[in-house]
Amino acid sequence: MPKREGRYVIGLPNAPAVISWASAVGKTESEGPLADEFDVCYPTDKICDGSWEMCESKLSDTALENAFRKCGKSVDDADILFAGDLLNQCVASTFAARGTDIPYAGLFGACSTMALAAAMAALCVDSGAAKLAGACASSHFCSAERQFRFPLEYGGQRTPTAQRTVTGAGAMLIADSINDLPRITRVMIGRIRDQGITDANNMGAAMAPAAACTIIDFLRDTQTSPSDYDLILTGDLGKIGSELLRELMITREKTDISRVHNDCGLMIYDLDRQNVYSGGSGCGCSASVVCSHILKKLSRGELHRVLYVATGALMSPTTAQQGENIPAIAHAVEICKF
Amino acid sequence: MPKREGRYVIGLPNAPAVISWASAVGKTESEGPLADEFDVCYPTDKICDGSWEMCESKLSDTALENAFRKCGKSVDDADILFAGDLLNQCVASTFAARGTDIPYAGLFGACSTMALAAAMAALCVDSGAAKLAGACASSHFCSAERQFRFPLEYGGQRTPTAQRTVTGAGAMLIADSINDLPRITRVMIGRIRDQGITDANNMGAAMAPAAACTIIDFLRDTQTSPSDYDLILTGDLGKIGSELLRELMITREKTDISRVHNDCGLMIYDLDRQNVYSGGSGCGCSASVVCSHILKKLSRGELHRVLYVATGALMSPTTAQQGENIPAIAHAVEICKF
Repeated sequence: MPKREGRYVIGLPNAPAVISWASAVGKTESEGPLADEFDVCYPTDKICDGSWEMCESKLSDTALENAFRKCGKSVDDADILFAGDLLNQCVASTFAARGTDIPYAGLFGACSTMALAAAMAALCVDSGAAKLAGACASSHFCSAERQFRFPLEYGGQRTPTAQRTVTGAGAMLIADSINDLPRITRVMIGRIRDQGITDANNMGAAMAPAAACTIIDFLRDTQTSPSDYDLILTGDLGKIGSELLRELMITREKTDISRVHNDCGLMIYDLDRQNVYSGGSGCGCSASVVCSHILKKLSRGELHRVLYVATGALMSPTTAQQGENIPAIAHAVEICKF
Repeated sequence: MPKREGRYVIGLPNAPAVISWASAVGKTESEGPLADEFDVCYPTDKICDGSWEMCESKLSDTALENAFRKCGKSVDDADILFAGDLLNQCVASTFAARGTDIPYAGLFGACSTMALAAAMAALCVDSGAAKLAGACASSHFCSAERQFRFPLEYGGQRTPTAQRTVTGAGAMLIADSINDLPRITRVMIGRIRDQGITDANNMGAAMAPAAACTIIDFLRDTQTSPSDYDLILTGDLGKIGSELLRELMITREKTDISRVHNDCGLMIYDLDRQNVYSGGSGCGCSASVVCSHILKKLSRGELHRVLYVATGALMSPTTAQQGENIPAIAHAVEICKF
């Protein structure tokens, strides 16, 4: 049964296990440093015959299907699926979930969605509300570009602070298990931070304060320090956001996290070799990295305690055009392998 | 601690209480039959000086503020807020939550959002993950029209099957309590139904099968029948969707629910007098009706057992234009006053 620790952290004494995970990615991700880690690498971003939106949906679908297949479970065994994406009305997730008949709870956390979904799924399993719960998130470069920025055909130029939306999806299945598996031991739902950033081409700067807030709250509530973790993994701050986060941690807490910090947006691409500016972003960024590389390393015992903190910029093109600030949030999930 | 009943229903043995609720609505709703029930009736839909999106956000803000005020709690007492709306990237909820500093979990369930939010909030309290949890949802006629249909200035004609998006928001606060209050005793997360409907001006028809599916599953899992409820309350099926739901229940289950069924979309407006076609719709429809009229009747003992089933059409303008079907979902919350 979940138990509050301090002000914001929710401890999960049953430590539900991540019994399976899978990822599916597009072309640029398949050419990046984590290519060998993903379950499915599409050689193109045109993943199906349909629209970019349906291509993104197919990524979620593929990740989910593989997650079920890999643990020998059927979709009919699942009690609930938490999923979300960046598209208007979260249609990538809806159209993926439509094919499964799993009770479906749609989430919106922008790029923080995978952590939010994993947190809710773990909460449900720990509390007995679900025996088997799924969590899934996706994004697609082409569907995001035309929705948030410009149509691809326009060939808009990017600023050096811009990040590339990852074409990818990740899914994990969470259940009680006696097996030797990675376990979710604590979760934390973040608070919205708004530092007055309005530049939609500098999401890292908008999201770094939210990551700092969540990490600080988490460490305080659990009375731990960065050195207690093998990895503090942010979702998609990219190069600029990651630097800002490390600076914020030094300024606010006099804590240097650089030895244990990494960011999925920096891991999924080779920033020197690939033309991705400040790194990867999008719900699919941390979803695909966690549901491949990170969970594999945990399951092999190469990592023992990971604090996964995914950030999201909670704006829309409409609010950006209206000159509103970009509020941001970060949700945290502690994953351990004992 | 939550306990699964049958295949889909989650029983909440601690029966968390709805300790406070509040609603805020716009002009047309203030002229409807439930005008006296709402906490705040704005005489105009231009609720603040900002955009229509910010006007919608202000509705959520007002509902939340009133819900806290009415029970003498501070926003700082809340452990988690579940909220969502129909706008792209759920910005009405984000900008309302930004002002509160409550840990925020964004949801997307289209018009089913209030039931989804109440279900998640009740689950969190029942399981001990939260002591005080909030649930909130909103919609606004003008922000919805320009996003989903036409700019208001265009003066587009409507079909008789069309529904009017409610300008309104509702919020409820859920906590353990020994007081004599309405309680959430069971929740159920719905499965997506897709009956091949593609007409975005006939949402009732798209959503009725989802409502039927959830009601049938709920009654089966709990071994209850419609006569065990004072009210089976759907969210916003409107006139056509409600008729379809009743027919579906007769065809599939040989059960006539018409004696106990009502729909928030039919209650919030006077369909004969107000120019609202097939009735009300939008997240704010059932949110404002449940968080006023229904919870008041429950608290006064005029209703004892209500099955609240909010439906949502999980499409976007993009998928509609791409000719995709309209998948729908319905989430259920059982609210009792012992």
